[in-house]
Amino acid sequence: MDHNDTTDGDLDLYDTHSYDDSMLDDHADNWTISSPKSFDLENGSTEHLLTEHSTLKRGGSSFPNETSQTAIIGVKSSHIESLDYEIVENDIFKQDWRSRTRAQILQYIILKWTMAFLVGLCTGLIAYAINMAVEYIAGYKLSQTTRFISDSKYSIAFSIFAGGNILLVLSSAILCAIFAPAAAGSGIPEVKAYLNGIDAPNILAPTTFIVKVLGSIGAVAGGLAVGKEGPLVHTGSCIASLLSQGGSKRYGLTWQWLRYFKNDRDRRDLVTCGAAAGVSAAFRAPVGGVLFALEEAASWWRSSLLWRAFFTSAIVAVTLRVALSSCKGDNCGVFGTGGLIMFDMGVISTETGLLELVPVIILGTSGGLLGAFYTFLSGKVLKTYANWHAKYGLFGKLFQAFLVALITSVLIFGLPWLGACTACPTGITHECPSNGLSGKYKQFTCQSGYYNDLASLLLNTNDNVIRNLFSTNTEGLYHYSSLAILLCSSFFLALITYGTAIPSGLFIPVIIIGAAYGRLVGWFVRSTTQLQTFDEGIYAYLGAASLLGGSMRMTVSVCVILLELTNNLLTLPPTMLVLLISKTLGDLFNHSVYDQILHIKGLPFLVEKPEPYMKHLTVMDVCSSPPMTLSAIERLGNIVEVLKSTDHNGFPVLEHSSEVPKLHGLILRSHLLVLLQKRESDYNSADFAKPGSGKSRRIEDIQLQTEQMNEYVDLRPYTNASPYTVVDNMSLAKAFSMFRQLGLRHLCVVSTTPKASPISGILTRHDFMPEHVLGLYPHLRANKWNRLHTKSSVSDVFVS
Amino acid sequence: MDHNDTTDGDLDLYDTHSYDDSMLDDHADNWTISSPKSFDLENGSTEHLLTEHSTLKRGGSSFPNETSQTAIIGVKSSHIESLDYEIVENDIFKQDWRSRTRAQILQYIILKWTMAFLVGLCTGLIAYAINMAVEYIAGYKLSQTTRFISDSKYSIAFSIFAGGNILLVLSSAILCAIFAPAAAGSGIPEVKAYLNGIDAPNILAPTTFIVKVLGSIGAVAGGLAVGKEGPLVHTGSCIASLLSQGGSKRYGLTWQWLRYFKNDRDRRDLVTCGAAAGVSAAFRAPVGGVLFALEEAASWWRSSLLWRAFFTSAIVAVTLRVALSSCKGDNCGVFGTGGLIMFDMGVISTETGLLELVPVIILGTSGGLLGAFYTFLSGKVLKTYANWHAKYGLFGKLFQAFLVALITSVLIFGLPWLGACTACPTGITHECPSNGLSGKYKQFTCQSGYYNDLASLLLNTNDNVIRNLFSTNTEGLYHYSSLAILLCSSFFLALITYGTAIPSGLFIPVIIIGAAYGRLVGWFVRSTTQLQTFDEGIYAYLGAASLLGGSMRMTVSVCVILLELTNNLLTLPPTMLVLLISKTLGDLFNHSVYDQILHIKGLPFLVEKPEPYMKHLTVMDVCSSPPMTLSAIERLGNIVEVLKSTDHNGFPVLEHSSEVPKLHGLILRSHLLVLLQKRESDYNSADFAKPGSGKSRRIEDIQLQTEQMNEYVDLRPYTNASPYTVVDNMSLAKAFSMFRQLGLRHLCVVSTTPKASPISGILTRHDFMPEHVLGLYPHLRANKWNRLHTKSSVSDVFVS
Repeated sequence: MDHNDTTDGDLDLYDTHSYDDSMLDDHADNWTISSPKSFDLENGSTEHLLTEHSTLKRGGSSFPNETSQTAIIGVKSSHIESLDYEIVENDIFKQDWRSRTRAQILQYIILKWTMAFLVGLCTGLIAYAINMAVEYIAGYKLSQTTRFISDSKYSIAFSIFAGGNILLVLSSAILCAIFAPAAAGSGIPEVKAYLNGIDAPNILAPTTFIVKVLGSIGAVAGGLAVGKEGPLVHTGSCIASLLSQGGSKRYGLTWQWLRYFKNDRDRRDLVTCGAAAGVSAAFRAPVGGVLFALEEAASWWRSSLLWRAFFTSAIVAVTLRVALSSCKGDNCGVFGTGGLIMFDMGVISTETGLLELVPVIILGTSGGLLGAFYTFLSGKVLKTYANWHAKYGLFGKLFQAFLVALITSVLIFGLPWLGACTACPTGITHECPSNGLSGKYKQFTCQSGYYNDLASLLLNTNDNVIRNLFSTNTEGLYHYSSLAILLCSSFFLALITYGTAIPSGLFIPVIIIGAAYGRLVGWFVRSTTQLQTFDEGIYAYLGAASLLGGSMRMTVSVCVILLELTNNLLTLPPTMLVLLISKTLGDLFNHSVYDQILHIKGLPFLVEKPEPYMKHLTVMDVCSSPPMTLSAIERLGNIVEVLKSTDHNGFPVLEHSSEVPKLHGLILRSHLLVLLQKRESDYNSADFAKPGSGKSRRIEDIQLQTEQMNEYVDLRPYTNASPYTVVDNMSLAKAFSMFRQLGLRHLCVVSTTPKASPISGILTRHDFMPEHVLGLYPHLRANKWNRLHTKSSVSDVFVS
Repeated sequence: MDHNDTTDGDLDLYDTHSYDDSMLDDHADNWTISSPKSFDLENGSTEHLLTEHSTLKRGGSSFPNETSQTAIIGVKSSHIESLDYEIVENDIFKQDWRSRTRAQILQYIILKWTMAFLVGLCTGLIAYAINMAVEYIAGYKLSQTTRFISDSKYSIAFSIFAGGNILLVLSSAILCAIFAPAAAGSGIPEVKAYLNGIDAPNILAPTTFIVKVLGSIGAVAGGLAVGKEGPLVHTGSCIASLLSQGGSKRYGLTWQWLRYFKNDRDRRDLVTCGAAAGVSAAFRAPVGGVLFALEEAASWWRSSLLWRAFFTSAIVAVTLRVALSSCKGDNCGVFGTGGLIMFDMGVISTETGLLELVPVIILGTSGGLLGAFYTFLSGKVLKTYANWHAKYGLFGKLFQAFLVALITSVLIFGLPWLGACTACPTGITHECPSNGLSGKYKQFTCQSGYYNDLASLLLNTNDNVIRNLFSTNTEGLYHYSSLAILLCSSFFLALITYGTAIPSGLFIPVIIIGAAYGRLVGWFVRSTTQLQTFDEGIYAYLGAASLLGGSMRMTVSVCVILLELTNNLLTLPPTMLVLLISKTLGDLFNHSVYDQILHIKGLPFLVEKPEPYMKHLTVMDVCSSPPMTLSAIERLGNIVEVLKSTDHNGFPVLEHSSEVPKLHGLILRSHLLVLLQKRESDYNSADFAKPGSGKSRRIEDIQLQTEQMNEYVDLRPYTNASPYTVVDNMSLAKAFSMFRQLGLRHLCVVSTTPKASPISGILTRHDFMPEHVLGLYPHLRANKWNRLHTKSSVSDVFVS
């Protein structure tokens, strides 16, 4: 999938949305565990029925949905399903609604807030633990390295440094690759997909959670160009999911009260709060966390959810504040400096009048271009890595991690030798040169009274590097050549690191690259134009903003996160302008880095707006029809047969009492499985409770006797009697909007004219995927420039 | 409507949602201009058809919708309609979609961003102009008053002060009451209603806009307890609406390019940006503005809209920054001090460990209670005032404004006499005592070297009062008795002011009350517990937060707005806790002050979640049926007759070609009127463009000859062939969610069993209003405690 083939600059700027089928074939050949012939997961149709319908001219591909039902979760192909957000209006659930006592409702409310509280508390504590672990491990490693360097025992220093890094990274990779492949990577794309209604096994499982935490410590302490921010979002979501499942059933940790949360809607809400808590904890930015969840993570949002996410974030903030107060007196390493504000920039005047437009425009433009370029390259790397993983398996993943750790160690240890020794500024002998963990003036190999600026920027923890880059009133502290070396090396390391089998966040590397390049721009502007505009620290800050805007394409949340990171409100207007420019420019070339990852992983993400060519099609043009139906009174054997022969998850139930059959409603596969499994006369809603993410009952596990096969069951009490319907001549675009806004899994297509069957088809997520639609109607690709239209009105673009 | 009848504290905490019919009767008797017998506006039914259907037992009221089709906009009852957000899929519009050239699409995109830019620019400039005008007028008035006071000519001073105030307030009231009643009040409820899909005449008209700006200057400069924040939100929305309409047609200011914006969807988006721009400009808080629009104003939100609102707010910030840079050297009065940060609190340490929980809990709890009490009382006042306006008309409005101005002047001028003269602290002779406009130490009637703290808090502009209250390191500067007097007087003045016929924002009075009471709490905590916790300025800040949370019930946006107002990031965690507590407590008693106003004004606001009792009803239980239908080929005379006999806005079009009639789709009243008016064979989409807010074609204006009456027209090309439909046994709750989430105006109910008519009914906004549903089924009131359930999951509660 040549996602960025338009960077060569023709007018077809928005054409990047095209689906390259070879990408999908890759899936089928290398990455998936499914059968080569891929059926639609949920669409109520089987192949032999296809010829009955379809008077329209279709393209070269066969009719069944071609979208894969597998996607890469972390670094492993997994079977994916959709989540059920629709309210199932069958007799069982109606009964449940009506019979809830006041005490039960109170129970529910109390639990809901208790869980939000626990999500905040746990995420805060785990973030604290991760930070402390990283601080101690990396601190010990760096202090040993520095000690041997100052003793001029360079090979021992390097052995300790590289050995430590490789050990840490390999343990992280082993955990990831063997125990929880779903824990690799940032996790934000997976969480985003989950919140869009995509379910995959292990995405939020207990092992994933544990490995994410441990692996993240290993990767960050191992000095890689990764952050702990994305992983913390994933961790927060895992905590939320585990809590709402009542712990893990496998480990016997469940609880009766939690039955109210055994549905996808309540879980989605809690996972959204978990994502907010993750960012809050990672950046100690509670408001930024809420906005991140809102702008980037969540696909559906209600103001009640805003309120709950705000509550969760407040708990995180308070937890961290209390935890940090135990850090007084340097007993947490550098962690804890600045309290809740990680990189306090102090009060810097930024009043430069219209002059500030010069750096703002330069930074915005170049940040947008650099961000788009970074996104482009990281997409290429990710695809190469995915193929590598598929080819070489476990060994490939581990060797790759080893290689990345080695390269990183060599660069970080070796490059400072290129830096010159500079005499310390007068009057700050207490902090220059420094051999401690923090400090802007690292001695490295220099003699006393001299420092190596490149060592301060490289041989350091990521947090300290950012702190040094953001430091104000330090004009000329870092030589431009040092900044250039930092920029190139961190750009290179960030590219080769993401995609290995370790938990790896993208925020921190992007901030480092952006800050380095922002300082470079500052040097450039000052040296070429002699203009006195911003302080160099502000340049670094704006550079970070521009690269975040150019790669992640977030606006409000980046603004607030940066504000909360640096306590630098006065720079808000230029920050907003830089973000505007860089995001706009970036959007011209490709999608945001997370959306690109979603796409490469093959996750069937439902974007916000339909594609323009969907206006030209009706729902019947894409929907395989007629669907496989069941009768209101159905033989068990028939049900078993239907369930075994298809993967579909919803079946229309027809009543044949009158002359013309009547649509009674839609029954879910999961409910049919419960009926087959229990075969009692009396059910309650708890029997139909949805198991946790990625788990579902399977027809293969159910064994029926022959005489049972001939029994009949009345499906009507278990059928959702009011499924959402659309008329068959509705445009695909309009149906898309409805499907997306209501968060549906099945959408029934009915005819306005009375026909033999009351239902003409069922639309599912996969029917709306551009690759499916364009596979059926390749000539629509010609209309794709219409994309220009929709794209700009969506802006928050997507991969679909 | 005793909205707060649960403050007497029984267990029925959530019962406040009840609809009191007497409230509705009030409408019909006093406030509305409609006929006493109120029909449903849009519901496709007429009375004589009612008996055909309805086998269910209904309550005491007659079947037609009882919700009024009028609401109070500003201080005038107006006819209201719903807005059309649905994509009309008829042949004309499909043709328009498909035929748009690339140039036209580019035109559209460029215009969309240009308009967002213009909204930001204009709102920023107007906010600047309002601020300057207030600063100069109020400054002149205050300096004259102070001069005569220091000359001990108290009666002249009072005459100037009171006379000036009354003059300013009366001019504002005259403008409002005579030229634009829609401009009275905050405007936020009206904008919120518009963004929810409610349309009313003049709500966003040019006269409203002008009067809002001028009236706001008069009211604020006139010393009333009102802010310019709400009015600026309304102003920003007006600018957005006027721009999207291409200026005003009446004044010949329109433009061909703007035809793309002649629909309700694009207008809604731009008005959302306008609301964001208003808050951004009012508080110089660009991020807070975006969040306000998101959390409070908008009912539907997309991430592309977040991005556009962010752009608009950035433009506002830059505009203000440039404008403020012209304020160097005190030539803008106090305005401009602090640049973009209005009340800079400086760096204040707030690290008090767990001790901070004491003030946080006290402030949160009492703020929540006080906020709920304020909301309760202001509701009472508002209803009294509305009755007064209806009874005494123009004279009543003007007299009321006069009275409020007089009382305000007497209190503000008279109360400082109760304050004692205090000796100035040593070493600050340059600022104490002061007779200037600003300053914390007003001399008033004291001798040299002494100041009157009560005068600093009362005889001042609102902005300066807040600045004084928020000032840090000023322990004991304001005596607790002075704070108590300020608290009581501002509480009283805020209550009697809102509801008069002037533009009046609620933010500033609430902040003053909250800050005064926060300082009082600070004094109380310090004097009773001897605990050294926060600075008194922080107490004031947290007090303002708690009262905002307790009355407006916003969370994230209040947090960010306060942060941007004061540059006080370190206090974020306690601020969040205070907001959590006060909002939770407030929600136990009543709805937010804006939602209460929406309710009192009778605006049919569609809330986010259905009421619990709606689960017990199906759509057919509330929907009057069968609807009035048209034939695919219809006689013009029939159409005229149908349009004249009903107020409905959507008519199902049936095809009778086959044995059973088939539903072809839904045609809008506005489109039928175009057909009747033009009677051509060729239409394009521009002919069907929607006129601006509150304007629509009327059947009364169309005259047809008798022979024309007998002509036939094929309605099919103009019919929306794919209206949204639901099956007739869907629960009302589920249909509600769909209606609300998709932003519909009409929702067709179809039967699953073939019947004589393919359409069983049409649901409109009014069918989902609790008063309508409970009017039909009064016994459902018994189930209202279920409210507890939904309420807590909605939290962002509502009035409906």
